[in-house]
Amino acid sequence: MNGADALCDTLLANDVKVCFANPGTSEMHFVAALDRKPEMRCVLGLFEGVVTGAADGYARMTGRPAATLLHTGPGLANGLANIHNARRARVPMINVVGDHASYHLPFDAPLTTDIDGLAAPMSNWVYRISGPADVGPATEAAYRASLVPAGIATLILPADAAWGDAAAVLPNKVVLPAPPTVPTDRVRGIADAIRGAPGRVGILVGGTAAQPDGLEVAGQIAAARNVRLFGEVGVARMARGAGRVAPTRIPYPIDAAIELLSDIDVLILVGATEPVAFFAYPGKPGRLVHNDCRVMALATHGEDLRGALEALRDELGVKRTQSPLRSSAMPDEPVPTGELTDDAIAVMVARKLPENAIVCDEAITSARRFFALSAYAAPHDFLMTTGGAIGIGIPLTTGAAIACPDRKVFNLQADGSAMYTLQGLWTQARENLDVVTIIFSNRTYAVLHMEMQKVGVGKIGENARRMLDLDQPSLDWVAIAKGMGVEAARVSSCEQFDDLLDSVLKRRGPFLIEAVI
Amino acid sequence: MNGADALCDTLLANDVKVCFANPGTSEMHFVAALDRKPEMRCVLGLFEGVVTGAADGYARMTGRPAATLLHTGPGLANGLANIHNARRARVPMINVVGDHASYHLPFDAPLTTDIDGLAAPMSNWVYRISGPADVGPATEAAYRASLVPAGIATLILPADAAWGDAAAVLPNKVVLPAPPTVPTDRVRGIADAIRGAPGRVGILVGGTAAQPDGLEVAGQIAAARNVRLFGEVGVARMARGAGRVAPTRIPYPIDAAIELLSDIDVLILVGATEPVAFFAYPGKPGRLVHNDCRVMALATHGEDLRGALEALRDELGVKRTQSPLRSSAMPDEPVPTGELTDDAIAVMVARKLPENAIVCDEAITSARRFFALSAYAAPHDFLMTTGGAIGIGIPLTTGAAIACPDRKVFNLQADGSAMYTLQGLWTQARENLDVVTIIFSNRTYAVLHMEMQKVGVGKIGENARRMLDLDQPSLDWVAIAKGMGVEAARVSSCEQFDDLLDSVLKRRGPFLIEAVI
Repeated sequence: MNGADALCDTLLANDVKVCFANPGTSEMHFVAALDRKPEMRCVLGLFEGVVTGAADGYARMTGRPAATLLHTGPGLANGLANIHNARRARVPMINVVGDHASYHLPFDAPLTTDIDGLAAPMSNWVYRISGPADVGPATEAAYRASLVPAGIATLILPADAAWGDAAAVLPNKVVLPAPPTVPTDRVRGIADAIRGAPGRVGILVGGTAAQPDGLEVAGQIAAARNVRLFGEVGVARMARGAGRVAPTRIPYPIDAAIELLSDIDVLILVGATEPVAFFAYPGKPGRLVHNDCRVMALATHGEDLRGALEALRDELGVKRTQSPLRSSAMPDEPVPTGELTDDAIAVMVARKLPENAIVCDEAITSARRFFALSAYAAPHDFLMTTGGAIGIGIPLTTGAAIACPDRKVFNLQADGSAMYTLQGLWTQARENLDVVTIIFSNRTYAVLHMEMQKVGVGKIGENARRMLDLDQPSLDWVAIAKGMGVEAARVSSCEQFDDLLDSVLKRRGPFLIEAVI
Repeated sequence: MNGADALCDTLLANDVKVCFANPGTSEMHFVAALDRKPEMRCVLGLFEGVVTGAADGYARMTGRPAATLLHTGPGLANGLANIHNARRARVPMINVVGDHASYHLPFDAPLTTDIDGLAAPMSNWVYRISGPADVGPATEAAYRASLVPAGIATLILPADAAWGDAAAVLPNKVVLPAPPTVPTDRVRGIADAIRGAPGRVGILVGGTAAQPDGLEVAGQIAAARNVRLFGEVGVARMARGAGRVAPTRIPYPIDAAIELLSDIDVLILVGATEPVAFFAYPGKPGRLVHNDCRVMALATHGEDLRGALEALRDELGVKRTQSPLRSSAMPDEPVPTGELTDDAIAVMVARKLPENAIVCDEAITSARRFFALSAYAAPHDFLMTTGGAIGIGIPLTTGAAIACPDRKVFNLQADGSAMYTLQGLWTQARENLDVVTIIFSNRTYAVLHMEMQKVGVGKIGENARRMLDLDQPSLDWVAIAKGMGVEAARVSSCEQFDDLLDSVLKRRGPFLIEAVI
């Protein structure tokens, strides 16, 4: 048994059984080891941004890490943007980055890079394996680091550690501690603050607090104590749909966010961080709450979020039988007709969403209505970008579909962002994943046009226009999808879209809709 | 005038007049400033790997830096793999990376990242601008750092430095020192070593030593003193073709490289570093020369390479009128027929290459014959990947074509590598660049199959095969190209390829040939 075998065995012993991969020469022994373990599912991405974004999607839907297999510094670099998003989503991930044999590094061969330095900014934990005997303990440590608390563990695997003899290494199942319970004092202090600001309290939920059980308890508190519920600007995952408790998402545009939070005097954080402006704008504040607002963390990432909400509920004297305020079924929304718009697509998708679907929103400026409507749609999981690095939608839905093969996955996808990691369509085809990608084809970085206005640029000239618009030539998404083995169709009216949606809902496997808006 | 204007003006004052860009919100003031400078050519890439690879191609063909415009840490991260290649090619580049306003960083907004940390591993120089008044001096310093010696200068531009008042900043033209002349002692020592090892001396040329003037002098020494000439494993740029001096490139496969250098007792480096094994292989050495070989640097990157070769020639008593050994015209090579192979493509392209073309080779295992044949083709420039990060061909040829609008550009492109930065095809279409991309469509990472053999894996199972092969489904490159606005055709016989090449040579503008091999 060599080091690479020990790595695979330790991953498998800890139920890490999916490896999103784009290997290179320095990882050939690891590939050979994976080849000896048919119980490890290896999923190839044709670019590392696909690999890491898919691992994020897998983690969001399972709460468990996938492994990624990346080739030296450049391979890691290609995956960093989506690792950044995953870190902001606070999900577990184990990146295995192959490096040269340790004795080869002093030669400064062409691919030699400072992998440790590259990994650090986007990782919660980085470790370079010292030799074959270290592979087992290091992999156990990586597994632990990826889950306590959930985060990005990056393990650098020199080729000689992979190919060296590791006969003595026994794969161990790692015992993880339960998430810490929050101290009673903290709960009491927050309960007091809530009592002291009636009608002016908000609870901001993230992590598992945004999943059904957590939302249910937060909803009980909200209903009984007149507290408002909020979701983060970037929602990693939230249970949505009719019959569920429906927090209001803090909007991305700064003025709307400030307005939403303007009458909140106490903001309670549960698995979330204080909301701040996505970008700085001249003359506008960085914090979104007003200056006199008390921001209090009930439970931070890694603590027992649901337990903390239950403790707060009990401390506030809210009955365990208290009914939360739940979303009703879809309100009577007229069926859109005529020219296709992003709003119309949001309405049509929300109306026909099948139960237990997964919806990823990387539509950026488009489909902003979807989140509000999703409260009334059939119960589903909602995912979106968390770190602001574009190019997550196609990979994230790829990983979510690997994690949940029986659930229909929808990707509401801006065209400019889709171009970043379009290679993921091929993986969807190869793995025959049940993902419907809806490209909002507006042929522009619309968010940047909006931002140009915000910074006070009124009229846009040729140099700027050519950097903000994706026209000349227009992208043909039907051809691009076909090129990667994904069936696709283009629609430009509401009627066409609705009809196509019906037929797509009756089939399985990847499909791309180019929605010309 | 704000800081962003000062940045543009300083770039333009120093003749940096092409900006490859993919901007985001934090760079809106820079985009607005570019909009006020129509003399700056802004070229949009739909992914940052395209942006940085194009800047590399531009620099290789002009010897001058282009600017890149990248959005915060993730935008930089997406561009790092090709920055790594550019650093290994020792070309000038000025990366402008936008960041949050400095006062916004403590809020740790979603896109906040350690840009300095990310930039360092792949940059020769990194600097964070301290405020609007610092923009001018910092940009001058970046320009200098990109050229003395040529390398990667990364300039971090906080949004408040871009939008702040910089009325007092005057754009300066930077005066650069001439490259240092090499000391006479060094030249004499090397001349002595050459005299002491007749028939067992090699000169390894890189940088400008691989351009016509440098090759000519190296060729004089080689002809008069029985010295062999070598090119680096990764050739950044070399003048090739009939009538020129033709060094032998050190091959990538380690056994062939060691064999080639086995009878060299003195290896003289001119603008190159000592050749080492691309990867470590168990039981094989890291150095490619034998243990008793003396490796001597005549001139290192940044020194006057041509001057050093001239001094060495004179020191050796070689006449200035000495004729070098030049390549003849194309030998009588039979026209390939029948089923298309990578070798056949190399022959057909070499035969019909138009004069003054630019050829980029990212065909990896395919088209290995091309370099040898290129000695006999019409005079042209040859470029290839230098750092081993795949995904350079499409961006590099994009930048080369921007630099040299009157020259036909050919890209010999492996399919797996093409997928990494395929977005560059769209830029070729938008800018109507005269680039012919030849996809060697073998539907596999063939190099990895080869490497699996080298590490001793005989039979490949399902898990490994699925990580090494790009089949199921096959990529349809004609559809992918069409999707990005590039005309394309598929061929699978030599006759079809040769006919298509004829018609492609008669037209201008981007074209993609999917060569099924």
